[in-house]
Amino acid sequence: GQDMSQQVADPYSNEPKRHPALVIRSQKPFNAETPAELLTGKLYTPNDLFYVRNHLPVPAVDPAAYTLRVEGEGLRTIELSLKDLRTKFKRHTISATLQCAGNRRTEMSSLKDIKGTTWASGAIGNAEWSGVNLKDVLEYAGLDDRSETEAGHVQFEGLDSDMEGVCYGASIPIEKAVYKGADVLLAYEMNGRPLSKDHGFPVRVIAPGIVGARNVKWLSRIITSKEESQSHWQQHDYKSFSPNTDYDTVDWESAPAIQEPNVTSAICDPGHNTPVSTCEGTIPVKGFAYSGGGHSVIRVDVSADDGKTWTVAELSSVPAKRSRAWSWTLWQAEVPIPRDHVGSIELICKATDNAYNTQPDSVAGVWNLRGVLNNAWHRVKVQVQEE
Amino acid sequence: GQDMSQQVADPYSNEPKRHPALVIRSQKPFNAETPAELLTGKLYTPNDLFYVRNHLPVPAVDPAAYTLRVEGEGLRTIELSLKDLRTKFKRHTISATLQCAGNRRTEMSSLKDIKGTTWASGAIGNAEWSGVNLKDVLEYAGLDDRSETEAGHVQFEGLDSDMEGVCYGASIPIEKAVYKGADVLLAYEMNGRPLSKDHGFPVRVIAPGIVGARNVKWLSRIITSKEESQSHWQQHDYKSFSPNTDYDTVDWESAPAIQEPNVTSAICDPGHNTPVSTCEGTIPVKGFAYSGGGHSVIRVDVSADDGKTWTVAELSSVPAKRSRAWSWTLWQAEVPIPRDHVGSIELICKATDNAYNTQPDSVAGVWNLRGVLNNAWHRVKVQVQEE
Ligand SMILES: [Mo]
Ligand SMILES: [Mo]
Repeated sequence: GQDMSQQVADPYSNEPKRHPALVIRSQKPFNAETPAELLTGKLYTPNDLFYVRNHLPVPAVDPAAYTLRVEGEGLRTIELSLKDLRTKFKRHTISATLQCAGNRRTEMSSLKDIKGTTWASGAIGNAEWSGVNLKDVLEYAGLDDRSETEAGHVQFEGLDSDMEGVCYGASIPIEKAVYKGADVLLAYEMNGRPLSKDHGFPVRVIAPGIVGARNVKWLSRIITSKEESQSHWQQHDYKSFSPNTDYDTVDWESAPAIQEPNVTSAICDPGHNTPVSTCEGTIPVKGFAYSGGGHSVIRVDVSADDGKTWTVAELSSVPAKRSRAWSWTLWQAEVPIPRDHVGSIELICKATDNAYNTQPDSVAGVWNLRGVLNNAWHRVKVQVQEE
Repeated sequence: GQDMSQQVADPYSNEPKRHPALVIRSQKPFNAETPAELLTGKLYTPNDLFYVRNHLPVPAVDPAAYTLRVEGEGLRTIELSLKDLRTKFKRHTISATLQCAGNRRTEMSSLKDIKGTTWASGAIGNAEWSGVNLKDVLEYAGLDDRSETEAGHVQFEGLDSDMEGVCYGASIPIEKAVYKGADVLLAYEMNGRPLSKDHGFPVRVIAPGIVGARNVKWLSRIITSKEESQSHWQQHDYKSFSPNTDYDTVDWESAPAIQEPNVTSAICDPGHNTPVSTCEGTIPVKGFAYSGGGHSVIRVDVSADDGKTWTVAELSSVPAKRSRAWSWTLWQAEVPIPRDHVGSIELICKATDNAYNTQPDSVAGVWNLRGVLNNAWHRVKVQVQEE
């Protein structure tokens, strides 16, 4: 018995030390979010406070031995070392927000039970990423206009794998990688530092404007293909359905894999049940807003009277090219305290993006069995302290 | 007196005959919508039933004398006749939906008064458009990669003008016209017939996925430029604001000109206050759904019990390339009649697009002083006839 068990290496033996302020949602695999009050106020989330969403154990990678294999439809098969990536291709830096599709799941779970990692609103962060452009690497491997049209997808595989050796995988539509202005990176740096173990050392995909799950970490293989990734996470997870669809009735083929996430926002400060003073007549409220697909956030409205009146928030964001607003928008507002409040006030925020899409009022209409993409108006109850 | 008045030609002397089924919202300029029950069931809206949104009198155009002037940033100035357009450039055909930004304004007006044309939900239609690709014309006039980057916008001017000679004008971001896969047309045919007077004879812009107001009719001039159109309709109209913003407080510069409209849907059948029978146990419901920017509609949910339960509708649409879903989606559902209904039932529909954006629950949160882009859940009250 003892001999056998010693032969099975602990798949979680390579987990790194993590920042104690992270709110741990699961240990194995490790999932942890940034406390909301630490998210706001900084356009760039510090690396060690950035949410971690691992699907599998953190793989041990020897950077000297690392190779990235690039192959598939219309490509010659190539293998690139870290040095190849750093020397053969131009370095690019972009600012981009990553968000887990399950961010804000708790609001859905409290309505009706959901299987899945608990997330409040901190499974989101923004960073400056440096690396090489995926488009440059694909063209280096022979992708041209014709093969681009024939290959419909770019698949990514990670070095992380389960007990049976099945690795994490995902894909994105190829046009998102190759259009003029496409900013999909094979990133080796996060906020000016080499990627950490939790964030995909040595190389990860940064597909800006696309949901976290497709931004594959510990990248080992890129495959152009007619079909999208056949991985569990592409086919039978990270999709949303009608509120009345359950595990007995779900047809996974009937919904597309989440790519560009919907417009969302959250109040980060004050936190739930925080005491607030009425002596100024207003409550200072801060938060984030984000929309996928390069959409910019054009407005955030905040209400303290259940949506009867709205205060327009002041916005702050990293400058971005039009249609390439990959980063979130931080916001703050001084919201008038309604006269007729009793004891507590519910603060509400909602964002609007440049396609004038906005958030639905209530969670019930977007509730789904996986608890993903909850973008209902965010509500925070605060306790009023009379002066 | 009489001599003077005879010298002033009636600007509305060129108005065409219109189909008597159109619901007229304004005579001068002419604005009329398709009755909802005639919208559904046909993927292509018949030309003479297609909604008409004129901002100014219909101009008289002599096709033999017609010239289109193309000029601006990075271009040599050229003039093209109708024959030039038909012979010098490849003919392209696309299916695309046009929708007025004010569609569904009445639901907003009934909440709080709004200046602007009344529209129920029929200021939308889908057609097959044929013409030349704007990109081909711009390249013929000398647009290249460098000038494309320098010019930020493509402006369009119409032959329709007001009493002071100011013509209708609008613009779109240039990348929407020139990216690989861009389908912006200078269209001369609608559903296989030459454009009618009301729809822009002889040439109009079809900017698929972009709001009706930028699809300039009776096109006379195309201008590439660093700035967007300075027209009234681009700068001080066709923008949306926070519900509490009014004409005293509005800062027109603070919101972007509407381009790609948000996801929306409407119930076309049954109509408001229609009697429905309960003998089958379900109500057949039909309607349309649409999202701008080439987004496809992936799901429509219909409820007869105020959103407690939702029935997923069956969808029908014109086949489209990925990211280029320019046409609407028609849908139908058999919605179970709730047991506890009393006299009337409110039917609700909401659509979700492939970015998983969806419609807000209520009009109040998206109400705006111009009454544009109302995409709240659409609600229709029907009268139940017990069997
Ligand atoms: Mo995720
Ligand atoms: Mo319009």
